[in-house]
Amino acid sequence: MPYVKIELTREGVTREQKQQLISGITELITEVLDKDPNLTHIVIQEIELDDWGFAGEQVSVLREKGITAQRKK
Amino acid sequence: MPYVKIELTREGVTREQKQQLISGITELITEVLDKDPNLTHIVIQEIELDDWGFAGEQVSVLREKGITAQRKK
Amino acid sequence: MPYVKIELTREGVTREQKQQLISGITELITEVLDKDPNLTHIVIQEIELDDWGFAGEQVSVLREKGITAQRKK
Amino acid sequence: MPYVKIELTREGVTREQKQQLISGITELITEVLDKDPNLTHIVIQEIELDDWGFAGEQVSVLREKGITAQRKK
Amino acid sequence: MPYVKIELTREGVTREQKQQLISGITELITEVLDKDPNLTHIVIQEIELDDWGFAGEQVSVLREKGITAQRKK
Amino acid sequence: MPYVKIELTREGVTREQKQQLISGITELITEVLDKDPNLTHIVIQEIELDDWGFAGEQVSVLREKGITAQRKK
Repeated sequence: MPYVKIELTREGVTREQKQQLISGITELITEVLDKDPNLTHIVIQEIELDDWGFAGEQVSVLREKGITAQRKK
Repeated sequence: MPYVKIELTREGVTREQKQQLISGITELITEVLDKDPNLTHIVIQEIELDDWGFAGEQVSVLREKGITAQRKK
Repeated sequence: MPYVKIELTREGVTREQKQQLISGITELITEVLDKDPNLTHIVIQEIELDDWGFAGEQVSVLREKGITAQRKK
Repeated sequence: MPYVKIELTREGVTREQKQQLISGITELITEVLDKDPNLTHIVIQEIELDDWGFAGEQVSVLREKGITAQRKK
Repeated sequence: MPYVKIELTREGVTREQKQQLISGITELITEVLDKDPNLTHIVIQEIELDDWGFAGEQVSVLREKGITAQRKK
Repeated sequence: MPYVKIELTREGVTREQKQQLISGITELITEVLDKDPNLTHIVIQEIELDDWGFAGEQVSVLREKGITAQRKK
């Protein structure tokens, strides 16, 4: 009976990306824990940039300073 | 000191239905646990259909396929 | 697809009381929202008295002062 | 690695007030627990007045009756 | 800045399985959303069987009746 | 009506530190938002090191490698 909540900043996540997260995590849980997928619920919650604080600053302020959350390559 | 969070898909829940959930759950907690209702807080959070995943699929996709969450009768 | 989380202080809630909360809330949601109970999950989380703060004080301190959460009669 | 979630009723909280909460709580956690602020995330979630229940009533109803959440002075 | 919470029933999940969930979900989020993994936090919370309700029943009761959450094969 | 949840790794937080977090955050919310402290609830949840994942690794593994969450000085 897993329930999963994903909170992330609202920065243009598409419907397709959400579907990829939902199917990927459900599959992972089914494989790793051998759970019936009909018992797995996943909720995605997008958070406005003013409402997420990191290191004491609003993410909206960090973005204005050019600091992103993207993977370093 | 109970705090209750209800998450459900955003599918036309009315103000009256929310009030019924809030008063019903508060009463139940008051009766079962003998708690002062002035210490009971209830938060309802409606989730967009693209943001709720069940059995590996977005609920918006399930609804398009005609699969509902209604009680079987 | 409702998911419900109940957080309350750990003060001797019995297995029977938990069952009453679970069946009562599931019934209420089924009645008010016409939801299939097979899609309703409820999670109860008991919180130690040192870990719940109310009005700026730990509940453990409030209890030592004789302040309870019981219903006034 | 602290994660903090603040839920409050949507009643005109400004961007500046959110920043004060984020910086104040991050500082407090840094001081009290000696945590690296780069590991502290804070999420603020504003809740519509119809969606918050207190003492069995929607906050929107309480506000219509003139009952506020302001500090007594 | 994703934060992920996984709630599941306490039924013998091993340290290795937890690690697989953590690394798998972090990788998925890094791939799908192009997020820096240093900003992804995942919290697993195991719930006692008396504390999880499904379809109006405690999971402990469902297990006593022989109803499991395992994948159908 | 604020509700605050603090999740942090279980690494020897004392009762006094919890009290400092509870009183400090309640005061901050009272000052910044002018809220009645009798409506502010704070819940602290300590998470086992195997159950918190950061950057794809369990915190228990990070600690074994000597990586801490302490403030850099």
